Amino acid sequence: MNGNVVAEVSIVPVGTADSGLSKYIADSIQVLESKKDLSYRLTPMGTIIEGPLANVLDAIREMHEVPFSKGVLRVVTNIKIDDRRDKVSSMLAKVQSVLQLRPSIKT
Amino acid sequence: MNGNVVAEVSIVPVGTADSGLSKYIADSIQVLESKKDLSYRLTPMGTIIEGPLANVLDAIREMHEVPFSKGVLRVVTNIKIDDRRDKVSSMLAKVQSVLQLRPSIKT
Amino acid sequence: MNGNVVAEVSIVPVGTADSGLSKYIADSIQVLESKKDLSYRLTPMGTIIEGPLANVLDAIREMHEVPFSKGVLRVVTNIKIDDRRDKVSSMLAKVQSVLQLRPSIKT
Amino acid sequence: MNGNVVAEVSIVPVGTADSGLSKYIADSIQVLESKKDLSYRLTPMGTIIEGPLANVLDAIREMHEVPFSKGVLRVVTNIKIDDRRDKVSSMLAKVQSVLQLRPSIKT
Repeated sequence: MNGNVVAEVSIVPVGTADSGLSKYIADSIQVLESKKDLSYRLTPMGTIIEGPLANVLDAIREMHEVPFSKGVLRVVTNIKIDDRRDKVSSMLAKVQSVLQLRPSIKT
Repeated sequence: MNGNVVAEVSIVPVGTADSGLSKYIADSIQVLESKKDLSYRLTPMGTIIEGPLANVLDAIREMHEVPFSKGVLRVVTNIKIDDRRDKVSSMLAKVQSVLQLRPSIKT
Repeated sequence: MNGNVVAEVSIVPVGTADSGLSKYIADSIQVLESKKDLSYRLTPMGTIIEGPLANVLDAIREMHEVPFSKGVLRVVTNIKIDDRRDKVSSMLAKVQSVLQLRPSIKT
Repeated sequence: MNGNVVAEVSIVPVGTADSGLSKYIADSIQVLESKKDLSYRLTPMGTIIEGPLANVLDAIREMHEVPFSKGVLRVVTNIKIDDRRDKVSSMLAKVQSVLQLRPSIKT
């Protein structure tokens, strides 16, 4: 075990007038680029982060602040943590264990 | 603004053999009973917590550890944070603002 | 087993200019008032629905349409389904099984 | 607009004794391989599906049944629907609109 969790975060600014949210997402993810202890990956539905639980949650708290710093008044943030302590967990290993069983699956 | 958020947490132990999870939920919520800065409420689908964001997340981290301390090897935790900074937010105010518009709604 | 699931839905209109969402929530829940085969309950973080899975999902689809009918252009809807087939499941039973273990928990 | 939504589903079998869930995930995703009207993609935290809302929800209902057919007694399924009606929405377009703003982001 490496002590890492895999988490997913989705940050939805509310009351933005514009229904496009890309700029908030891009700025939120910038937070992750400077974290040397975390890996991340943007998906069409959120951002997946891998690292020690405390560091992941600290980064998410920073990401959650970004829309407020741009003038947003309300933010709804969803976080999902997958924390496995019986074996090493990683973004790569999770996908590979499924692909091993069914290599035709698209990733 | 009181600086409070309203959050919901759902902690699902994985690989428990028994499909009942009440004992883990009961023990997790015990964490909240000693937090003087937080309010909480158990619902049929999770636990709703009200308080300063940092305190809420710290409490959720403690709750997330509880199943591991009982021998569980994997925990999937979902967190939803509703953070409003244009007005005071509370569990009570959120429900009342909907009931004001439609008093027949069941709570 | 009664074939019922307990589900939770949260419907977040995006791009609404106003950060208050109560009117959309109130109108969405109106959908549930006419469904004789479903029970529901509004919480500070969403709406909990109890009934047969197909009926619950059909009702949620109707609820999800409500903000669009009011002119909203984007809606993010989160659904969580707890489906237990080894015993009767209900909103009431889920809470009571936790309270039985720790009667001091607030609901 | 093409009438498509982008959704994410995560299916967690409860009470499985084993904390590994890959086999259930692999079998659930098999449902999607036969759906000509849907696109999908496995991520480390779930499965993202693109298509008409009704078809996506029907497929998710089928996926949700898979663990029960393998003997699981309880399944917790999380669904997130991002439904945009002001422009064409797709898995690809959602990621590209963020990358356009910050090409250094990892996907």
